[in-house]
Amino acid sequence: MHATTRIEHDLLGDLAVPDDALYGVHTLRAVTNFPITGIPISTYPDLVNALASVKEAAALTNNELGLLDDKKTEAIVHACRQVRSGAAREHFVVDVIQGGAGTSTNMNANEVIANLALEHLGCRRGDYAVLHPNEDVNLGQSTNDVYPTALKIATYMGIAQLVDAMGVLRASFERKAEEFRDVLKMGRTQLQDAVPMTLGQEFGTFAVMLGEDEERLREASKLICEINLGATAIGTGINTSPDYAPLACRHLAAITGIALTTSPNLVEATQDVGSFVQLSGVLKRVAVKLSKTCNDLRLLSSGPRAGFGEINLPPMQAGSSIMPGKVNPVIPEVVNQIAFEVIGNDVTVSFAAEAGQLQLNAFEPIIAHSLFKSVSHLRAGCLTLASKCVDGITANRERLRSLVENSIGIVTALNPYIGYVNATQVAQEALVSGRGVAEIVIERGLLTQAQIDEILQPEMLTQPRPGLAFGDR
Amino acid sequence: MHATTRIEHDLLGDLAVPDDALYGVHTLRAVTNFPITGIPISTYPDLVNALASVKEAAALTNNELGLLDDKKTEAIVHACRQVRSGAAREHFVVDVIQGGAGTSTNMNANEVIANLALEHLGCRRGDYAVLHPNEDVNLGQSTNDVYPTALKIATYMGIAQLVDAMGVLRASFERKAEEFRDVLKMGRTQLQDAVPMTLGQEFGTFAVMLGEDEERLREASKLICEINLGATAIGTGINTSPDYAPLACRHLAAITGIALTTSPNLVEATQDVGSFVQLSGVLKRVAVKLSKTCNDLRLLSSGPRAGFGEINLPPMQAGSSIMPGKVNPVIPEVVNQIAFEVIGNDVTVSFAAEAGQLQLNAFEPIIAHSLFKSVSHLRAGCLTLASKCVDGITANRERLRSLVENSIGIVTALNPYIGYVNATQVAQEALVSGRGVAEIVIERGLLTQAQIDEILQPEMLTQPRPGLAFGDR
Amino acid sequence: MHATTRIEHDLLGDLAVPDDALYGVHTLRAVTNFPITGIPISTYPDLVNALASVKEAAALTNNELGLLDDKKTEAIVHACRQVRSGAAREHFVVDVIQGGAGTSTNMNANEVIANLALEHLGCRRGDYAVLHPNEDVNLGQSTNDVYPTALKIATYMGIAQLVDAMGVLRASFERKAEEFRDVLKMGRTQLQDAVPMTLGQEFGTFAVMLGEDEERLREASKLICEINLGATAIGTGINTSPDYAPLACRHLAAITGIALTTSPNLVEATQDVGSFVQLSGVLKRVAVKLSKTCNDLRLLSSGPRAGFGEINLPPMQAGSSIMPGKVNPVIPEVVNQIAFEVIGNDVTVSFAAEAGQLQLNAFEPIIAHSLFKSVSHLRAGCLTLASKCVDGITANRERLRSLVENSIGIVTALNPYIGYVNATQVAQEALVSGRGVAEIVIERGLLTQAQIDEILQPEMLTQPRPGLAFGDR
Amino acid sequence: MHATTRIEHDLLGDLAVPDDALYGVHTLRAVTNFPITGIPISTYPDLVNALASVKEAAALTNNELGLLDDKKTEAIVHACRQVRSGAAREHFVVDVIQGGAGTSTNMNANEVIANLALEHLGCRRGDYAVLHPNEDVNLGQSTNDVYPTALKIATYMGIAQLVDAMGVLRASFERKAEEFRDVLKMGRTQLQDAVPMTLGQEFGTFAVMLGEDEERLREASKLICEINLGATAIGTGINTSPDYAPLACRHLAAITGIALTTSPNLVEATQDVGSFVQLSGVLKRVAVKLSKTCNDLRLLSSGPRAGFGEINLPPMQAGSSIMPGKVNPVIPEVVNQIAFEVIGNDVTVSFAAEAGQLQLNAFEPIIAHSLFKSVSHLRAGCLTLASKCVDGITANRERLRSLVENSIGIVTALNPYIGYVNATQVAQEALVSGRGVAEIVIERGLLTQAQIDEILQPEMLTQPRPGLAFGDR
Repeated sequence: MHATTRIEHDLLGDLAVPDDALYGVHTLRAVTNFPITGIPISTYPDLVNALASVKEAAALTNNELGLLDDKKTEAIVHACRQVRSGAAREHFVVDVIQGGAGTSTNMNANEVIANLALEHLGCRRGDYAVLHPNEDVNLGQSTNDVYPTALKIATYMGIAQLVDAMGVLRASFERKAEEFRDVLKMGRTQLQDAVPMTLGQEFGTFAVMLGEDEERLREASKLICEINLGATAIGTGINTSPDYAPLACRHLAAITGIALTTSPNLVEATQDVGSFVQLSGVLKRVAVKLSKTCNDLRLLSSGPRAGFGEINLPPMQAGSSIMPGKVNPVIPEVVNQIAFEVIGNDVTVSFAAEAGQLQLNAFEPIIAHSLFKSVSHLRAGCLTLASKCVDGITANRERLRSLVENSIGIVTALNPYIGYVNATQVAQEALVSGRGVAEIVIERGLLTQAQIDEILQPEMLTQPRPGLAFGDR
Repeated sequence: MHATTRIEHDLLGDLAVPDDALYGVHTLRAVTNFPITGIPISTYPDLVNALASVKEAAALTNNELGLLDDKKTEAIVHACRQVRSGAAREHFVVDVIQGGAGTSTNMNANEVIANLALEHLGCRRGDYAVLHPNEDVNLGQSTNDVYPTALKIATYMGIAQLVDAMGVLRASFERKAEEFRDVLKMGRTQLQDAVPMTLGQEFGTFAVMLGEDEERLREASKLICEINLGATAIGTGINTSPDYAPLACRHLAAITGIALTTSPNLVEATQDVGSFVQLSGVLKRVAVKLSKTCNDLRLLSSGPRAGFGEINLPPMQAGSSIMPGKVNPVIPEVVNQIAFEVIGNDVTVSFAAEAGQLQLNAFEPIIAHSLFKSVSHLRAGCLTLASKCVDGITANRERLRSLVENSIGIVTALNPYIGYVNATQVAQEALVSGRGVAEIVIERGLLTQAQIDEILQPEMLTQPRPGLAFGDR
Repeated sequence: MHATTRIEHDLLGDLAVPDDALYGVHTLRAVTNFPITGIPISTYPDLVNALASVKEAAALTNNELGLLDDKKTEAIVHACRQVRSGAAREHFVVDVIQGGAGTSTNMNANEVIANLALEHLGCRRGDYAVLHPNEDVNLGQSTNDVYPTALKIATYMGIAQLVDAMGVLRASFERKAEEFRDVLKMGRTQLQDAVPMTLGQEFGTFAVMLGEDEERLREASKLICEINLGATAIGTGINTSPDYAPLACRHLAAITGIALTTSPNLVEATQDVGSFVQLSGVLKRVAVKLSKTCNDLRLLSSGPRAGFGEINLPPMQAGSSIMPGKVNPVIPEVVNQIAFEVIGNDVTVSFAAEAGQLQLNAFEPIIAHSLFKSVSHLRAGCLTLASKCVDGITANRERLRSLVENSIGIVTALNPYIGYVNATQVAQEALVSGRGVAEIVIERGLLTQAQIDEILQPEMLTQPRPGLAFGDR
Repeated sequence: MHATTRIEHDLLGDLAVPDDALYGVHTLRAVTNFPITGIPISTYPDLVNALASVKEAAALTNNELGLLDDKKTEAIVHACRQVRSGAAREHFVVDVIQGGAGTSTNMNANEVIANLALEHLGCRRGDYAVLHPNEDVNLGQSTNDVYPTALKIATYMGIAQLVDAMGVLRASFERKAEEFRDVLKMGRTQLQDAVPMTLGQEFGTFAVMLGEDEERLREASKLICEINLGATAIGTGINTSPDYAPLACRHLAAITGIALTTSPNLVEATQDVGSFVQLSGVLKRVAVKLSKTCNDLRLLSSGPRAGFGEINLPPMQAGSSIMPGKVNPVIPEVVNQIAFEVIGNDVTVSFAAEAGQLQLNAFEPIIAHSLFKSVSHLRAGCLTLASKCVDGITANRERLRSLVENSIGIVTALNPYIGYVNATQVAQEALVSGRGVAEIVIERGLLTQAQIDEILQPEMLTQPRPGLAFGDR
């Protein structure tokens, strides 16, 4: 398959690298060592871009510090920009689940960028005497600062897209809340009929929940803007100049457009994955609430005849290979499953975070993999739910109104006028007899029809109101 | 509170122990060191009993091996039986969450038993020159074999009681399955009306699920019958005779009535908590399915008027402090919450198991605490669910039948006679028009009323049947 | 035991309540219905206090709105303050795991406060015609706003105490960081020797991590200051005046001293448990990092002779019932186990949160139980770890220095002067031969002894530094 | 890209399907509806094969029952075998995370097989009047029996391969156990030096643990041999003949070579995912123990100079982009991360299982996805760990022996001869003074050098032994 090869060398000896590969010996070792998922890191373009951004920032800094000459710097910067423009993706080949704390991912980036830079300089791939993956591209860096910094940038980008998608879904719920603002229905607690509300209020809560989650994600996002670039191996900044960290951070912020800051304690920052744990916890929160929302949508649309039957989800596909005409709530169902995956991912992140030892957490790759999956699947779920489900929801207005009118729960509204004890007796009689609450109340001489009508005005049932004079007790 | 004290000694120096305490210096250190939950190990009587059983078995074995004289042996055996008969419970005071791999629990048992034995011998508490907690009661043992062995016995006892409770609940479901065997209803998939079934079939599945789970628990129980007594510190059996392990196992089996065996590899058995992980996984399975069952009960009883309204749970308490007459499914709800706790406990067990290092798992106390909670709460949940909910469930037979008769789902039964494509069109017309399936089929000339009547016989809808001749396609 | 009883009544009929009970029929039903853990809600004094605060705020509000007369108001307020001063704790008897969305806890509070108020008014217990648990104490309220509001207040109080305890532990680590500021040691990544650092830097990170977690807890705490009091059954505020919610919030803030606000959307706030999920996620983060810290302490103190042997934990108790003189890291071990429990609790909270349906989450009791356990156990763990472990840690300074001097890892510091390729060869030779790095470098003519001495000054190894002139490459 | 299209029809209307697609309208709807992961179901060849096996078994059964003519039967069987031989993989395009309880996966199989059969019959793709995906390929089936049956077969196949891989790893550990059988070393409990053992015993436990897990997987595998084919929509077997289920099971067993049986209660079997939960729990157990093993390997190989330094893992790649010569335990690290993923997957499975409602669990696709990932990644991890790590492990024999000789822990072996109290004093003096245990014992006149030599024979320290006469106490 690879007709010709070049020989590269590492501490294990020589290795033949395919000539057309932009990666080198370290990457190839890793590919051989980690045949786990078959999914390469190029699956996460935000990560590849972030690595290229870090390498560019480092090269510019090293140049300013007089450690990297102009020619090399220009070549490395050019290569990084090529990568960010989408070139060479297929050369980021290390498995997403890998040992080594991200070293192989960093090495993969170093090698691809070095070889792109060599090409730019008119040299052959592998001609590392001219420009070296470690000594030049990785100059002043360690995997232990490059990798978490790149993860933070990539995650920040992913979260921003997720928040946008949540905004789309929120807007969809808000439109429905407005559309259903006058649709009276029975509210339910513990799956039992409670008191009236509007369908608009119900859909409004879905929107509000999302809005709060967007806010929480934005907060968690800020925590990952604090990077440890300049920490090198363990945070002591060995082999760097005191000027390196602040300069590199400034360059990286300019390249990415993110308000990055350098952590005040780089030893702590290098071993700590707390901001990822926090973020994963917030993603779990998003998942939990999104799943609850989907559960409600499925419940409210249950039927068509033997269920709640309050709303209709738009049919998206035939629901059964055997039951003709059956249509299922497939879109909420897929979002439920994304949520279950995200909650599981959070446990994986907890395990990986807890397993960190001493000056480093060696398990950042699985943290990254878990977060990237959670973020991208939640995003897909939100957009799908908005466009393929919520936008097309309709209400069965007749049924909803009739359920309110025949409900026992409206007796709660009579509570302030007839008292909890009387009201309980009325409710019990209604339940046993199947009769209406109003007629029993009148029959018992507790209130007149006119009083009941005044109390049970729909717009009065769904919000607080001043006490009615006749009802004073 | 403790008027007088006696002085005991350990490697940290002297310590004043309350004179009325049956425990000694090691226990007191542990009480001071672990002020975590305020819950003492006496909360788990099965564990205290199991420890006493192990100590008795060890004493008898040491006596047979000529290592413990008859007088000491008799006194220790007497003390162990006192403990198992319920004495001295309040002296098992170490916190359920404790460091030290169970050492403090073992020391607590050694000290209480030693002092009970001393009393039996007419000596004062603390007179360890006569009979020593470590050198006599703990002779030939280590925490690292005593503690896991005791946990296994205690867990075995707990599981047996849980299986009994599940049997009670299963029988309750079976009675309802029989009671509802002729009640036709609509089955549902994905919360959408599907095809008919009987309410008896529905309740039968709850019973079958429990039966399978009982079987799984019995299997997992067998795994914890393999003990490591005789392993001492790390499984090499240091300081024991080759005869010790088999003899002690035989005595312990006789005392407990459990078919215990000695693990073939004691080094492995001493560090491995796999059988607890397995058991916790099965308890999680029980929890997951019990929660699903409770979800179904709550859904089927939703209403009374705006829900599924298929069954009625017996009212157990007023459901609301504000909504008169409201009754909630509080018993299934409490079982759901037990299930959620058990599932969380399983994650705790996984963490603790994974954290074991080299020749021992130091985190067995939290594994034990988690398992004991799961087992006892599940047991309480099953008994409560049976007697306070399932036994009193009634069916709304009229409503159930009417839902079947008006359903679109019965069109599935016509599938073999009119084909999936025709049936889909009939279903769609029924949904849009609100009309019945049968009249549309007849109107379209697909079948006659007589044919439909033959096909839609209830007893034919709820089980496989030979094809009807006229329906051959 | 209860010589005499009084008869109380609810929708299920009459029930004999012990005459000496301050609780009433609803509480007694709940006690019978939920025999799960045996742990009563009085275990959580913050919760009992918070309930009394809510009831007092509601009474004052109802009085201002003209709905509750002065005499009743005064009696209820008096009763609430009695409860908060610690009275009647033993009458809060409902099980911590309960069905009914907290209704039984609310009823328990209503009944105890009503009977305390009746006593204050000189009436008999149970004389609800004078002052009624539901119609007076619960006036204008629902479990669905009272219970989550009380949970938030109680949790806020608990978190404040936890943050204080974390501060104590942080201060302890900070003192050690100062004490060990000049102790040079080898840093490690992936358990392999890396580059030098100081033991002070290592302990400093433990302090910094805690400080960050304190900050995260404070943020999460703010989210639970937003309450839904005034929402009543489902958030529509049925049966309340528009003035009720803001007035009640103002009173409650004054009583508790917490900056409470009313949620802008009460329908959403009544069903949403997002702030508890968030808080649980942050507690999990605290647990994960505390566990990592304890893992490090155990690792660094491993030995005494066959381990890392870098630090000594103060001995707290004999470590083995069989191995004389063995002392184990029992305090970090107990904190590890607390962490594992907290992480499991978080999964329980996720399950319970996800299971909420429509206008209410019926599973708040298990959320509360899980959070209260996590908060109080973490607090105990932090205080224990500080006083019983960290405060007494000492360093094996000789060993630490000798490990640095003999390390291969210091070759990294030579990297800028001899290059990555040369340095790799030196490291490999050192590893194979067992010789020192410096002598090999000199032998190969890469640097002089004087240059090496200058490069390897301890204070230069543990922080960034400007490049040395002779090292320019 | 798709030059031409054909028009297909479903209940939503017409849709243009690419002419070169073997799938049809239902699949295409699903592809549009579920743009979640970008990973198609063809990623799991075992699942595709299993679906083809089920379809073949159904066709043969329908033919025997006289419901499907010979020509269609032959064409369907031919198509199924083509699929199993690897054809048409790229036409199984539905996303692995999908709504609809697996309907889209089943439809995808029906359509691909129908079109392959049509090709075999010389017809055009989409010519469903000749042979129809639903009416012929899916005849007598429902997604609700086909999909779980196929999942079980696919999982069974995957587990078999995993067990084989575990066997390879076990054999690798067994070889090392044999190689290291005479290498004496210090055992450790709670990371503290305990008593001697052999390195062979240590590696032997890794092998034994795997062997037990293989056994547990085999047991769990048997549970998934019970299928529900013939249940159709909800387990009542609607639209099937009583002979269908047993006949189809027999054919399927013959095709797959698995000892499949039909569940005795098909209603229960159709909604129950208990066997998947069980299996996931066992996979979690495997993960937990494999992770513990890798933790041990990393700990034992820590160093090279400042760690335990007992064993050497074979170097697999350069360990650092900045620290020359550093080699990390990358293979155990990758296995740790696989384990963390599997544990998280188990939580996902628990959530999905608990969320099942009434007659079906709609969330089987995420259960399947989670299980398939766990099984295949664990398999890759075991094979990688065996060949790239364990096989090349060497022992630092000198260091190991010297640690035993200088240990304090050997005092435990003197316990039976000098007593726990004396031994504790000796241990404390040794710790403080840095002196050897033996010399202190002799100095104190507790034992002679000759007695000590006899007691401390290596082969006597690592197994139980009869008491030595002189040591009788």
